[in-house]
Amino acid sequence: MSTTYRPAGLAARTDSLTSSAIRDLLALTARDDVISLAGGLPATDLIPIDRIAAAAEAALRRPDAVQYCETSGHRTLRSVVAARESLTRGGMPVPVESVIVTHGSQQALTLLAQALIDPGAVVVVDEPAYTGALQVFSIAEACIESIPITDTGMDTDELERRLAAGLRPAVVHTVANFHNPRGVTMSEQRRRHLAALADRYGFWVIEDDPYGEICFDTTESDIGVPPLPIACHSDRVIRLSSASKILAPTLRVGWFVAPPSICAAVELLKQGADLCGSSMTQLMAAEMLADTAWLDAHLVVLRREYACRATALTNALGAEFGDRLTVSRPEGGMFAWATFRDGTDTGELLDAALDHGVAFVPGTAFASDAQYRHSLRLSFAGSTPAVLAEAVRRLGAAHTASTRVR
Amino acid sequence: MSTTYRPAGLAARTDSLTSSAIRDLLALTARDDVISLAGGLPATDLIPIDRIAAAAEAALRRPDAVQYCETSGHRTLRSVVAARESLTRGGMPVPVESVIVTHGSQQALTLLAQALIDPGAVVVVDEPAYTGALQVFSIAEACIESIPITDTGMDTDELERRLAAGLRPAVVHTVANFHNPRGVTMSEQRRRHLAALADRYGFWVIEDDPYGEICFDTTESDIGVPPLPIACHSDRVIRLSSASKILAPTLRVGWFVAPPSICAAVELLKQGADLCGSSMTQLMAAEMLADTAWLDAHLVVLRREYACRATALTNALGAEFGDRLTVSRPEGGMFAWATFRDGTDTGELLDAALDHGVAFVPGTAFASDAQYRHSLRLSFAGSTPAVLAEAVRRLGAAHTASTRVR
Repeated sequence: MSTTYRPAGLAARTDSLTSSAIRDLLALTARDDVISLAGGLPATDLIPIDRIAAAAEAALRRPDAVQYCETSGHRTLRSVVAARESLTRGGMPVPVESVIVTHGSQQALTLLAQALIDPGAVVVVDEPAYTGALQVFSIAEACIESIPITDTGMDTDELERRLAAGLRPAVVHTVANFHNPRGVTMSEQRRRHLAALADRYGFWVIEDDPYGEICFDTTESDIGVPPLPIACHSDRVIRLSSASKILAPTLRVGWFVAPPSICAAVELLKQGADLCGSSMTQLMAAEMLADTAWLDAHLVVLRREYACRATALTNALGAEFGDRLTVSRPEGGMFAWATFRDGTDTGELLDAALDHGVAFVPGTAFASDAQYRHSLRLSFAGSTPAVLAEAVRRLGAAHTASTRVR
Repeated sequence: MSTTYRPAGLAARTDSLTSSAIRDLLALTARDDVISLAGGLPATDLIPIDRIAAAAEAALRRPDAVQYCETSGHRTLRSVVAARESLTRGGMPVPVESVIVTHGSQQALTLLAQALIDPGAVVVVDEPAYTGALQVFSIAEACIESIPITDTGMDTDELERRLAAGLRPAVVHTVANFHNPRGVTMSEQRRRHLAALADRYGFWVIEDDPYGEICFDTTESDIGVPPLPIACHSDRVIRLSSASKILAPTLRVGWFVAPPSICAAVELLKQGADLCGSSMTQLMAAEMLADTAWLDAHLVVLRREYACRATALTNALGAEFGDRLTVSRPEGGMFAWATFRDGTDTGELLDAALDHGVAFVPGTAFASDAQYRHSLRLSFAGSTPAVLAEAVRRLGAAHTASTRVR
């Protein structure tokens, strides 16, 4: 018997899937002879591997550490996160039930997109934006609109003009602290403004905060400490964070804090997505986050080292390129953002840079259209000052070589 | 300025989200005074926690164990899985690139559903079916069709009749080894038949195999050993498995083996979903799965204990209920399936059972419509023979009490 039947292939949605430019670049730059300032990886040498091993040993003394756990996360970790989040919000109560633990905060973004975004719904993102968010919203078939970032965060005046002109987002996503890739922090005034707009126009704000605790200048003044979260000013804010940057990515522990209706919907979606997270890594994260004496000391080291690396990178860039390159002065986080003023196309520069043994992310990776051709993101987190100096030397040589070709 | 704008709520798809009956039941039965035969949890007392602790210690000697890893999974684990899968397939080569590691095999199901199923596409499932699969296909907005299971697995003759009559599935999902909840294993003849139908009609088969290695009778004969996988007979088969049942759920390590186009699409979807899994738990799983001397001895213990518990449960049920209850004779896996012949409604019986301190899953949880009202699934894995005997005594008392009411 013969049949005329078109074989099943892939779902239509797979046609529009595109790989994250950054994940692809990571594969390219895994070569030993390339100094990569491309990735968003925390410094491997600063990950507290001995403390992690001790936490694993402690967790595995409990039989419940090896079983399935609740879909919403291990209660022990949810309690610790709720208590820390309450401190971050200046003492505002945060119920344990409002915390959902996810498989890294990237899973939080994905599940929130599924819970909040119908195909075709409008999502507002920063311009430039976190690439992982662009990917999630694109898979969710959202209509993505951008609002520019300035030195004090998303331009909420521009957002208000767009709202007044009829823009009706379901969600506004922003990285308010030590923005990826721009490095800037949203001012308190703009936080209040964004929260008021959320209340007035009824959209959800996703306040994505992986870097808030990596603030550089906290010893002598409060200059580097971010203002209170946007979530302090409106109930329509969902706050995301993660243990990946301050403890270790391998825990795959992220979380969000949200109103009950959203937590309930995400819990059901997560049941289908993966049943639950790892009891073991959640208990490990809980132990380390609750060990405040150790954690505070660890964060002091992390902040000091990252601050030192940021200065080393930006000074080296200044010395190498002078006025030809505008470089951000990071006050926290993991990234510097730089823009060539001499017309250099950073996509073209990347080819020469890889030949010279250095990698970065071209600015176009952070836009939904073809912007930021003259910009680049450089991660200072993963390299020592000496290596950063060598990386900038190579970048200078690559720039000279590519200018000569042109 | 006032506005007339309907506030953003939840996405439309959240209207049809329903909680897994089993997950809800797990919450109900977490009471200390209830013996739960409801869950699909492996026996906590048989999880090799000391070996897991040693594997954690070993993994954390490698700096790459604490960082992000490749989206498709840590290469070390993918190699070990490919080698084991090749053995399972009787020596057929399995390239490392065809293995994708996921956050438990539930995530594999979800990502495969996203990659293969357009809304409205037909998906064929077993009848009765694994509830987690029903949930995933329902979230994917598939049109779910069922084919009955008999003592030799999915009735492929019935499937062939439906195909000849015009049924055009994109995917056929089946648990061929020690079926959940029915306990049966698909015969070799039906495996070949299903594979041939997949080739002729061009659908994908998802061969979901979490229990294949928990076969009871392997010492004196090959009676209990499942036939070669369906994947040996067609290229249109995607095989799923997991470390959750043989090592520990807490690792959250599952995997699938599939053709390159499917691996590529799922990798992109997984980038968005969670970036990657945990390097640490993947390296732990790799070490334990590659330690064949230890693993073989561990599996011998697991099979012997589970076989002993299965016999204890089915014997006790026979003694308690006699002809009023038909009980499966499990040859592997974690579940017995039983059907009352006296008209007992197991949904109603559950209320009485909980009052008497015992829990099971009513048969209706495994159907997309309201079938199996007289059936129930009982997990023997998590309880010792003495506890199973007490559980059956309580079930008998509950049955008597509920019959009296009726």
